[in-house]
Amino acid sequence: MAESFGDRLRRRVEQTSPLCVGLDPSSGLLERWGLPDSPAGIAAMADAVLEAVAPAAAAIKPQVAFFERHGAAGFAVLEEVLAAGRDQGLLVIADAKRGDIDSTMAAYGQAWLSEESPLKADALTVTGYLGIGAMQEVLELAAATGRGLFCVVASSNREGRTLQEATIPTGASVESMLLNQLAHANEWERACSGATLGPYGAVVGATRTAGSLALESLGGPFLVPGVGAQGATPADVGALFAGVPRGSVLVNASRSILATGPDRGALRAAAEELGGQLAEALR
Amino acid sequence: MAESFGDRLRRRVEQTSPLCVGLDPSSGLLERWGLPDSPAGIAAMADAVLEAVAPAAAAIKPQVAFFERHGAAGFAVLEEVLAAGRDQGLLVIADAKRGDIDSTMAAYGQAWLSEESPLKADALTVTGYLGIGAMQEVLELAAATGRGLFCVVASSNREGRTLQEATIPTGASVESMLLNQLAHANEWERACSGATLGPYGAVVGATRTAGSLALESLGGPFLVPGVGAQGATPADVGALFAGVPRGSVLVNASRSILATGPDRGALRAAAEELGGQLAEALR
Repeated sequence: MAESFGDRLRRRVEQTSPLCVGLDPSSGLLERWGLPDSPAGIAAMADAVLEAVAPAAAAIKPQVAFFERHGAAGFAVLEEVLAAGRDQGLLVIADAKRGDIDSTMAAYGQAWLSEESPLKADALTVTGYLGIGAMQEVLELAAATGRGLFCVVASSNREGRTLQEATIPTGASVESMLLNQLAHANEWERACSGATLGPYGAVVGATRTAGSLALESLGGPFLVPGVGAQGATPADVGALFAGVPRGSVLVNASRSILATGPDRGALRAAAEELGGQLAEALR
Repeated sequence: MAESFGDRLRRRVEQTSPLCVGLDPSSGLLERWGLPDSPAGIAAMADAVLEAVAPAAAAIKPQVAFFERHGAAGFAVLEEVLAAGRDQGLLVIADAKRGDIDSTMAAYGQAWLSEESPLKADALTVTGYLGIGAMQEVLELAAATGRGLFCVVASSNREGRTLQEATIPTGASVESMLLNQLAHANEWERACSGATLGPYGAVVGATRTAGSLALESLGGPFLVPGVGAQGATPADVGALFAGVPRGSVLVNASRSILATGPDRGALRAAAEELGGQLAEALR
């Protein structure tokens, strides 16, 4: 049995920092870097970012949408970026927010979490509108391969709030229900494997308040957007995740790091500074 | 201003049938056809299906997950399939269930709905866990280009039911809220463009009952999975959509058609038979 993704993540966070650098090669950012909005331009940006941030960040998170804009040629660059991230020692999280019925989810699992796939990543982001129950095969594949999932529970943007806070018949919110389902899946996996932290993570925006969310119950890692451009601070993250195990929180930052490029020294300095602030806040 | 996707769909349905053929090149189906589970195997299957069903079906719906299993090489085949489907006169729906925050959704819009993209399709499926409000730019792009979206409202699988039936503070269900938001977007677009049917569609499983869903309020097209392998019949579809405008319902069938291949005559006969039954049920 492969080492649990949760434990792999925890080890890497403690060796480096809680920082995950979001690789979002938007047309605006490419222009700012003086690069063309093309597969070659994206590859050049990715190369600089990976090399610059690898010593300071635990993970890199390519946002698949920005590669997908260039079709198959964009995916060819994404394959290279995923491999290069691994070679640099970074955990690589494919931010694809996939979510579908069971047979389709199984195919997404093959695409992103199986050893043979050219798109294999350490973890994949997913959404649960069609139910976490439809993800059984993907959950099993992740556990078997030492890979992970991050399911969006409480997103950082305001537009999803009404849906995520809707109430199910037990009185729980939708986001609490998903968190609880992930917690049970982690509990089962940890009982089977002896892992400290299970492979099933939750995306919880730093812009949210814990409210009724029992974050400490997850038993798996957190992926946390919302710091920087969306307004949350390292201190907000520290307060929100005060009750969860040390090393289980990965904080994503994209624009605030990438906008300091293309100078690699500036990129590394920005990653080191924010990584240090986050480590301090989550101590 | 381009003709509304809803009106394009309606015209095509009335010329052919309400049938949308789901192109789901799973490893099991490829094996059944005697084809390798490879980009070349998928291309061979797609070629046969497109040519066979084009006269009998309104649309083809490639399930992106099955292409994604082969990474960039799978996406290269998908680009060819999308173009070939258009060349055959079929509406082409990319079943990708994308859903994210606003800047990322805008990138998905560029990927699937912009004229320049190698992955351009007539419509894209999306999910709303992060809110339909985050899709503003994609909605506008769809309207401007004569393309459409299908947002999952009430999925055909049971695992999503608790989330989709959760209650928001007004007392409405999540699925009713999404349907209502799509209806308002269609109302606005129809007022601006004079279209009969707007570009924003809803995915509603044939396995569901209308219940509190005001399907007749949508003012846009429906994409309906669940017939065949998942147990619903053409009569179920007829009953569920009795109140909606003629020509606004597209019924997806995949395994029940594809399992008759690779013989093209058998594929066409299966598409003609089911297309005829659906046209009758939705008369």
